[in-house]
Amino acid sequence: MINTNTSILLTDLYMLTMLEAFYMQGMDGIATYEFFVRGLPQNRGFLVAAGLEQALQYLEGARFTEEELDWIRRSGRFSAAFADHLAEWRFTGDIDAMPEGTVCFANEPLMRVTAPISQSQFVETRLINLLHFQTMVASKATRCVLAADGKLLVDFGFRRAHGAEAGLLAARSSYLAGFHGTATVLAGKLFDIPLYGTMAHAYVQAHDNEATAFESFARAQPSNVVLLIDTYDTEQGAKTVVEVAPRLQGDGIAIKAVRLDSGDLATQAAKVRKILDDGGLQSTAILCSGDLDEYSIRDLLQRGAPIDGFGVGTRMDTSADAPYLECVYKLVEYSGHSRRKRSQGKASWPGRKEVFRQYGDDRCMQADVITVEGDTQAGEPLIEPVMRSGRRLQPVEPLAQARERVARQRNLLPVHLRTLGSHPPYSVRISPALEELIRRTDERL
Amino acid sequence: MINTNTSILLTDLYMLTMLEAFYMQGMDGIATYEFFVRGLPQNRGFLVAAGLEQALQYLEGARFTEEELDWIRRSGRFSAAFADHLAEWRFTGDIDAMPEGTVCFANEPLMRVTAPISQSQFVETRLINLLHFQTMVASKATRCVLAADGKLLVDFGFRRAHGAEAGLLAARSSYLAGFHGTATVLAGKLFDIPLYGTMAHAYVQAHDNEATAFESFARAQPSNVVLLIDTYDTEQGAKTVVEVAPRLQGDGIAIKAVRLDSGDLATQAAKVRKILDDGGLQSTAILCSGDLDEYSIRDLLQRGAPIDGFGVGTRMDTSADAPYLECVYKLVEYSGHSRRKRSQGKASWPGRKEVFRQYGDDRCMQADVITVEGDTQAGEPLIEPVMRSGRRLQPVEPLAQARERVARQRNLLPVHLRTLGSHPPYSVRISPALEELIRRTDERL
Repeated sequence: MINTNTSILLTDLYMLTMLEAFYMQGMDGIATYEFFVRGLPQNRGFLVAAGLEQALQYLEGARFTEEELDWIRRSGRFSAAFADHLAEWRFTGDIDAMPEGTVCFANEPLMRVTAPISQSQFVETRLINLLHFQTMVASKATRCVLAADGKLLVDFGFRRAHGAEAGLLAARSSYLAGFHGTATVLAGKLFDIPLYGTMAHAYVQAHDNEATAFESFARAQPSNVVLLIDTYDTEQGAKTVVEVAPRLQGDGIAIKAVRLDSGDLATQAAKVRKILDDGGLQSTAILCSGDLDEYSIRDLLQRGAPIDGFGVGTRMDTSADAPYLECVYKLVEYSGHSRRKRSQGKASWPGRKEVFRQYGDDRCMQADVITVEGDTQAGEPLIEPVMRSGRRLQPVEPLAQARERVARQRNLLPVHLRTLGSHPPYSVRISPALEELIRRTDERL
Repeated sequence: MINTNTSILLTDLYMLTMLEAFYMQGMDGIATYEFFVRGLPQNRGFLVAAGLEQALQYLEGARFTEEELDWIRRSGRFSAAFADHLAEWRFTGDIDAMPEGTVCFANEPLMRVTAPISQSQFVETRLINLLHFQTMVASKATRCVLAADGKLLVDFGFRRAHGAEAGLLAARSSYLAGFHGTATVLAGKLFDIPLYGTMAHAYVQAHDNEATAFESFARAQPSNVVLLIDTYDTEQGAKTVVEVAPRLQGDGIAIKAVRLDSGDLATQAAKVRKILDDGGLQSTAILCSGDLDEYSIRDLLQRGAPIDGFGVGTRMDTSADAPYLECVYKLVEYSGHSRRKRSQGKASWPGRKEVFRQYGDDRCMQADVITVEGDTQAGEPLIEPVMRSGRRLQPVEPLAQARERVARQRNLLPVHLRTLGSHPPYSVRISPALEELIRRTDERL
C-alpha cells in the first residue's frame, strides 16, 4: 500500500524524466538549489518560515519502494536499467536553512539544498509543497496573533482546509505562530498542541430546547463548559445560560465560556456581556468565531468588543486573501559554477547565498542584506547548517522552541509591520559581492 | 502508526465531546444532515459536485483503532466507559447525493446523511473537508475547460497545492472536470489519470548551453520531447530548437512541443510559432504555463495566440480567486421532526430535501426547484441513493464516467455561465411544500 503522504511519487513527472536524462548522460555534479519567495503578496509585509521539520523528514525517508518501482517499470516510460538504479536512490546531501519561525522577506533563501543534481533536482516538488504551505499559514497566523493582542486564539479551520494534510499542518503552523491551540484532534495528538472545543449548532437543534441542550452538555463535559448561544437568537441564548447556571453551579459546574458565531459580533458581545454580568456570570468568557481573520479581529477589538478569545478557521487555513506565495526552488550553482535564470519577469540571482539581519537603535529589525555565502556583512546571519550527507546535525527542534522564536521576532518587527501594514516595504538589499557574482555569471552565459 | 489521511481523529474536538454527551444522555435518534453551499463566490455562476467517492471511502472505513482509543483514554477528557463504547463505533447510515460531476448551485444539498445522531453528527468535519475541496477545484477547473475551448489542459499545481492530499485531489477533480491529465505522478497512479511532463529551467541551466540540454533531454525521452525554451531568451530558445531538430530527426526523434513559462505569452507564442514554422517544425506544438487560470486562457485565445495547450497550476489547485466555499453541514431533521438554524445571516432550511432541474426549449438548464423529499416537481431529480445501512448501493463509479457527466452537463449550461459570467444568477426556487415546512418548523421552535 502506497502511503499517500510520504510516497516518493508525490512529484511531477518531469522530475523522473529529467532524472533519467541525467542518468543516461552520467551527469551528476553537485548542484545547489535555493527555495525563496519571489515577491510578497499585497497584504503581507513579512513572512514567517515554517515547514523545515516536515521537509527534513521527507528527505530522510525519501526512497522508492518496490510497489513504486513496479509502477515505474510498467509505465512504459523508462528503461529497466533506470528503474533498477532508482532502487538505490537516497538523499545524501546538505541542507542549510532559516530555523522555523524566522521572520523573512522576498528573495531571501529560506532553504539551500546542496547535493548531486540527481538528488537536489528530484526533491523540488514535495519540498516546495511542504515549505510553501506552512510558511504561508504561519505568516497569516502571525498577523492574527498581532491583531489579537494577547487574546485567546484557536485554529478552527480543518473542515475547509484543502484536505487532511493542509488541516493538520495549518494547526501546526498557526500554533508555531502563537495560536494557543487547535480544534483538530489529530493535530493535537501528532504535534502535542493544546486542544480546544465548544459545541455545534446541531447539538442545540437536536434538543427540544436550548436550556436542555446547555444543561446536558455541561453535565457531560463539566470541566470544559463552552456553550454556543446563537442557534436561534443570541440574546435569548445568553438569558438561557443565566437561567441554567444556578442549577449547574449547585453541582459544582461552572460555565467557562459562551460562543457567538453569527451577526454583528461586537454589538452582540456587548449585549451578551451585560446579560451575563447582570446574571452573576462575570467570569464566563465570550468567544467568537465565524469567518474571522486579522482584519476582523483588529476591528472588533478596536471597537472595544468584550471578546476574550477567537476561533479562527477558513480564512487562516486557506490564507484566503493570499492563498499562495510566489515561491520557487531555483538552481544557483552547478559543478562549481554559479547559475541563474533570466526569463522575462522571473530572473533569479546566482550563487549560494546568506542573509544578514541588521537591527536599529530601537532594537527592531531595520534591514536585511543578501550576499554570497562566505561574505561577511554587519548583523546576524540567518541561515544555519541543518543536514550534512543526508543526516540531521541537531535533534528535532521542539515545536515550542520554534514558537518562542516567532514570539521573540514578532516583538522585533518594525512598528508598521506589527500593525498589519505592508508599506513601506522592509529594506532588503543585495551586497556588492552578490552584484559582482551576477555580473560574472551573465558574462559566462 | 496513525494513517494521517484516514484517521478517525481527523475531526474537531467538539465532535468527540458532543458524542460523549449524546452517549451519556442515551440520545441517539435518527438525524438527517445536509451538505450544501450557502452562496456562490462572486466569480462562480455554478459549482460542480465532487468528492463523493472519497466521502464514501471515509464512511466505509471510519473506526477507532486501538492507538486512537488509547489516546482518547489517556487524554483525561473522556470517561473509560465512553472510550470502550467507541471501539464499536461504525457508520451504519444512509447517504443520498448528487453524483460526482453534477452541476449544482447555492443552497442545493449535494449530500444527505441519515443515521443515528452519534454517527451523522460525528462525520461532519471530514465530510466537509473532502467534499468542499474537490467541489471547489472541480468548479474552477470546469471554468478553465470552458475557456480553453478544446485545447490541451494539464494540471501542474501540486507544488503550491495546500499539502499532499490537496495536490492529489486537485489532479483528480480537474481531470473529472475535463482536464486531459496531470503532472503529479502519484495522482496518475492512484486515479489512472494520464500523465504529462516537460522539463524544468534547472535542467537547461545545469548544462553549459541550451542546445546540449535540449539534445540530451530528447535522446533520453525520445517519445515525449517537450522542450522548455524561456530560460534565457524565448526567441533564441526557439531558434535553438530549430537548430537541434535536424540532428534529432536524423535519429527518428521528433520535437513534440515547446513550452513557454514567462513573458507576454500571446506575443511570444506568435514569434515562436513563426520561428518554428520557418524552421520546418510546423507540427511542433506550443504549450504555455505560468500563473494561468480561466481568465488568462480566455484572453490568450481571444488574442489569437497560437497556443496548443496549457499547464494550469497554482491558481486552479488553490482556487485562488475563491479559495473556499461557504459550505456547511446542517441538521435538518431529528427523530422525525424537521429542524433548522435561525442565526443572523446564517439561517438554513429544514427537512430532507430534493432538487429538480428543469430544461428550456433550447435544452439548456433553465431553473432548479428545491423541495421536500417525496414531493414531485417538473424536471429531473438530482439526488440519488448511494449508501444504505453503511453499504454502497453501486460499485465505485469509474472516474471516466463522472468526467463524461461533467462534459454532458457543461454543454447544457445557460450560455452566459459557459462564458465565465456569473450574472444573472441561475434560477433556484423553493417549492410551496418547502415553504410550508419552514413555516411549520418555526411554529414549533
